[in-house]
Amino acid sequence: MRKNILLIMQYEGTRYHGWQKQTSPDYTIQGKLEALLEKLFGESVQVYGSGRTDAGVHAMGQAVNFHTESRMPLPEMLSAINHYLPDDIAAVEIREMPERFHSRLHAKGKCYCYQVLTGTVPDVFRRRYALEIEEKLDVEAMRKAASWLVGEHDFKSFTSAKKGKKSTIRRLDEIRIEESGKILRFWFRGDGFLYHMVRILMGTLLEVGRGERDPDSIPELINARNREIAGYLVPAKGLTLIEVYF
Amino acid sequence: MRKNILLIMQYEGTRYHGWQKQTSPDYTIQGKLEALLEKLFGESVQVYGSGRTDAGVHAMGQAVNFHTESRMPLPEMLSAINHYLPDDIAAVEIREMPERFHSRLHAKGKCYCYQVLTGTVPDVFRRRYALEIEEKLDVEAMRKAASWLVGEHDFKSFTSAKKGKKSTIRRLDEIRIEESGKILRFWFRGDGFLYHMVRILMGTLLEVGRGERDPDSIPELINARNREIAGYLVPAKGLTLIEVYF
Repeated sequence: MRKNILLIMQYEGTRYHGWQKQTSPDYTIQGKLEALLEKLFGESVQVYGSGRTDAGVHAMGQAVNFHTESRMPLPEMLSAINHYLPDDIAAVEIREMPERFHSRLHAKGKCYCYQVLTGTVPDVFRRRYALEIEEKLDVEAMRKAASWLVGEHDFKSFTSAKKGKKSTIRRLDEIRIEESGKILRFWFRGDGFLYHMVRILMGTLLEVGRGERDPDSIPELINARNREIAGYLVPAKGLTLIEVYF
Repeated sequence: MRKNILLIMQYEGTRYHGWQKQTSPDYTIQGKLEALLEKLFGESVQVYGSGRTDAGVHAMGQAVNFHTESRMPLPEMLSAINHYLPDDIAAVEIREMPERFHSRLHAKGKCYCYQVLTGTVPDVFRRRYALEIEEKLDVEAMRKAASWLVGEHDFKSFTSAKKGKKSTIRRLDEIRIEESGKILRFWFRGDGFLYHMVRILMGTLLEVGRGERDPDSIPELINARNREIAGYLVPAKGLTLIEVYF
C-alpha cells in the first residue's frame, strides 16, 4: 500500500541554498530530506514542498509530501526522520493524506513573517532571524502603504520572476505590522506569493518607513506592473515561512 | 581622567569556553573583550564580570566593568565595541560608573533562566537554548520542591565547588516555573549563586518532575550539605544569565 505522507517542517535557512534541490554537493532542504528518506526506506523518494524558499529563508511550518511503500508506523517514521536530519532541520508533524494530495497544488494560502530589529544595538539571539535597521521607521506610514497592498492585485511590480505566461495576480489577505520593543514583525497572509514577492513588498514598505516613498504612491506602483520602480529586495535572513493553509 | 565603564552584555555561549579568560588561543568572552579593548584603546585593559558563566551558558544581561583613560564618547565607544565583537557577543548598554564600582563586588543579586523543551519533537529555533526532555514532567511536584528551596539556606549540597572557607549560604528569592506550550522556563532569582548551583538545582527539580525524587525530600537534602545526594548537573545550553541587580 503506497502511502502519501505529509510532513510539517521547521528549518533555519542560514546555511542552506534554499528549499529546492540543486546539483551535488547539495546544501538544500529538499536534497537533505530526499537523501535521508531514500536511505531510510531503501527506495527513491521524491518530496514536494508547498513552495520554494530562497537561500537563507527560514521555516516554522513548511508543508512537504511524499509517497512511500514503507509500512513503518507514522510516529516511528517521524522520529527516524528527525534522528537523521541535521539539527537545523526538523519535522514537527506527520500525517497520512489522501492519495492525490499535493502540498503545492492544494495549498490555499500561506503566512510569512518578516522580522526587523531597529536601532543601533545588536541582538545576539535574533541576529540570524531579523534584519537590522538603524533608522527610526514610521510605522503609521508603513501601515498606510500596507493597506493599499491588501486585496487582489496584479503583483507584477513585486516579483523578480522573468516574463512568462503565468498569472501574476494574487490575493493578499493581510499585512499586519506588530511592534514589540525594538522588534517589528511584518505578517503577510495571502493565497500565494510570487518569486521574491514578500521580500520586495518588504523593501517597498521599508522605503516608506524611512520617508523615501509616499505611502499613497502604492496604487500607482501596482498599476505600473514594473519591477524597476518597486522597492529593493530585502535580505533573506529576516523571512520565515510560518504556515501553509490547506 | 580614568573612567570606570559598565557594559551590559549579551552572548550566545555555544562556541565559547565560558566567561573567564584562559590560556590562548582564547575562546572566552572575557578574553575576546579584553583583546578588543586593548586594540581599541592602545592600553592594556582588565575587565571584571559580575560572575563567571560556564562554557555553553548564554547571557542576556551580563554586567562587566573596566577602567580606561580613553576620552572616546560613550555612544561611540559602544558602537566601536560592537563593531569589533564577533556576532555572537554584543554590548547592549554602556554607562559611566563611580570610580570604585565593581560589577562582581557590588552585585546585589542575579536572575537566571533555564529553558526545557518537552516532548519528542525537536525545535530548530530553540535547540541552542533549551534542554530537550522527552518525558512528561510533573510541574506541580517541581513547584512544591522549589518552594522548599526558596529562602536563605546553606546550598552546599548544590555546588560543585571544592571544599573551601567561603560561605555556601545564599538567599534564593524566587524560583518561578512558567509553562508556555512545550517550553518550560525556570526562573531563579537570588542574592548570589555558587559554582554550578543553578544547574544542580535544575537537575534536582527535573528528578522531582520525573517522579524519581520526592518533593518533600528537599529539606533533608539541604541539611545534608552533601553534593553526592543532590540531583545531576544539567547541560549548560539551557541556561541564560538574564540580569544582574545592583
